Amino acid sequence: MMPPGAGASGEDSLIARYFRPLATDPGAFALGDDAAILKAMGDDIVVTTDAIVEGVHFLPGDPPDTIAQKALRVNLSDLAAKAAAPAGFVLTLALRAADDAWLASFARGLGADSSRFGCPLLGGDTVSTPGPLMISITAFGRVAAGQMLRRSGAKPGDRVVVTGTVGDAMLGLDILKGGAVAAALADDAAARELLVGRYRVPQPRNALAQALRDHAHAAMDVSDGLAGDLAKLCMASGVSAVIDIPSIPLSAAAATALARRAVGMEALVSGGDDYEILCAIPEDGFDALARAAGIAGVAVSSIGTVIAGRSAPRFLDAQGRDLPLSRLAYSHF
Amino acid sequence: MMPPGAGASGEDSLIARYFRPLATDPGAFALGDDAAILKAMGDDIVVTTDAIVEGVHFLPGDPPDTIAQKALRVNLSDLAAKAAAPAGFVLTLALRAADDAWLASFARGLGADSSRFGCPLLGGDTVSTPGPLMISITAFGRVAAGQMLRRSGAKPGDRVVVTGTVGDAMLGLDILKGGAVAAALADDAAARELLVGRYRVPQPRNALAQALRDHAHAAMDVSDGLAGDLAKLCMASGVSAVIDIPSIPLSAAAATALARRAVGMEALVSGGDDYEILCAIPEDGFDALARAAGIAGVAVSSIGTVIAGRSAPRFLDAQGRDLPLSRLAYSHF
Repeated sequence: MMPPGAGASGEDSLIARYFRPLATDPGAFALGDDAAILKAMGDDIVVTTDAIVEGVHFLPGDPPDTIAQKALRVNLSDLAAKAAAPAGFVLTLALRAADDAWLASFARGLGADSSRFGCPLLGGDTVSTPGPLMISITAFGRVAAGQMLRRSGAKPGDRVVVTGTVGDAMLGLDILKGGAVAAALADDAAARELLVGRYRVPQPRNALAQALRDHAHAAMDVSDGLAGDLAKLCMASGVSAVIDIPSIPLSAAAATALARRAVGMEALVSGGDDYEILCAIPEDGFDALARAAGIAGVAVSSIGTVIAGRSAPRFLDAQGRDLPLSRLAYSHF
Repeated sequence: MMPPGAGASGEDSLIARYFRPLATDPGAFALGDDAAILKAMGDDIVVTTDAIVEGVHFLPGDPPDTIAQKALRVNLSDLAAKAAAPAGFVLTLALRAADDAWLASFARGLGADSSRFGCPLLGGDTVSTPGPLMISITAFGRVAAGQMLRRSGAKPGDRVVVTGTVGDAMLGLDILKGGAVAAALADDAAARELLVGRYRVPQPRNALAQALRDHAHAAMDVSDGLAGDLAKLCMASGVSAVIDIPSIPLSAAAATALARRAVGMEALVSGGDDYEILCAIPEDGFDALARAAGIAGVAVSSIGTVIAGRSAPRFLDAQGRDLPLSRLAYSHF
């Protein structure tokens, strides 16, 4: 854990300067001990962990505050999908050097989101590495005992519902890399900015956690591509699904990139980093979920139906033709 | 978290093959969901996180099973020092490539220690990196509400007590790097092997956690060197200490290296990676702690006394002379 020790070492002072202000929970002991205390208060503690790596989940030139936000938000997104309320997080930061300006911006972004989502820093570890930066976060949430939302509860007849819009983040990454999308949207700075923002700073749907607990049979967050993650949810639930491609929500920027043939639908539903919520909602629960989502300011779209069977989910276009999906989801190996 | 998904991706299959067998806790859902559940059962959850990096905390040639053991044990050591019983852990593994033989050995070492210490795998994340291997673990323990042992409770008159022996790990690292200690112990393969083993596979003192809770005023694990960590404990407690150098427990191998002038006492008390427990024990508690330690098979040594004041702890030799300590503890920056 992060000890602000007696020595005047660089590690201790950077922790005191940048991270101690984020340790607002009494259980963090102001990062002054070897461990933190998390009180369950009768709930179950939900634990999730996700790491982001320079060159994979963010780019070397990305603003440090957005890197911090992404590191925390990809974990908050998991808590949201599990219907858990954020309770805190621990951070492992692997740095090449302790650069003050970089750390100040990183801590600012982390602190802002920590406050925004009610998820205080409980502890962490800083290590030096000659390799790419890496931020690993383990986040904790609370949920009433036995009430964590699983991947495995989807039932035939449920609607397949997704929040927000799909595919924006992979387009943003393409733009940052100067790919085909950058060229196709060369005349539209606002669209490019929106897509880059979607790659850099996901919008975790924690405002929807309670409504998901009340109305969803199953949920997960979409991090490795809609198609692949839907296949995982279906497999965990022992079901299949049919998706209506025209119902898949796209941002105006993504729709433009698609219309200009800078990207295909297969890529949009296979690209990573959406951090939207994919869930299975019984027919009689959809209206209530949509109302709650409206109040929370989160778009929800019904994109298909859970069906019996074990085959891979099908994605059908307006003519009822199958979208060929060769590569279902991003894999690190 | 580690999802064993529907796709036949390398990431999913390596998780299923190597890590799912370690996820024995029902709250891990066999690594089949986005998050795990940790039940507090009325206790406080103690959270600690420590990462180890290739080239810093272990060497490229180290056996993968010992790397896994070290990654888990440095966290178990924190739980022991906080008087918490292990409850589980999550793992972030940053790998250059998915090498089957390496992973099989790594998972074997991790699984053996997970069973040995009753600390099941609850989830994790695998990412690829072109840089050094890194293993970040967040471990959880349970302790009766409000009973976590802190750094901050040491009182003047307490004995300063340390478990095991001090300085072995830094000597082991020197040997692996072919330094002066390797030359000085060239005639003693057993001593070299012992010291290397102490660097590679720490011996966390979890068997002593209950006795520490019953008898210690304050405790922490010694990871960054005895002298620096004692200074941290004293600062957290608002006290100072006087240490009797001849009472500091050394292994026979370390004593030989010291006698042959391959290392000095300053280096032994400043070197990292001991993973012993440093604690403050009231005079009337020491005998009971020593008895409990004897039953647990852990050596405990009284090495000095907590005194009032705010000055840095003093290390005095047999003639009462101060040991000059220029570099109190290892810092990553």
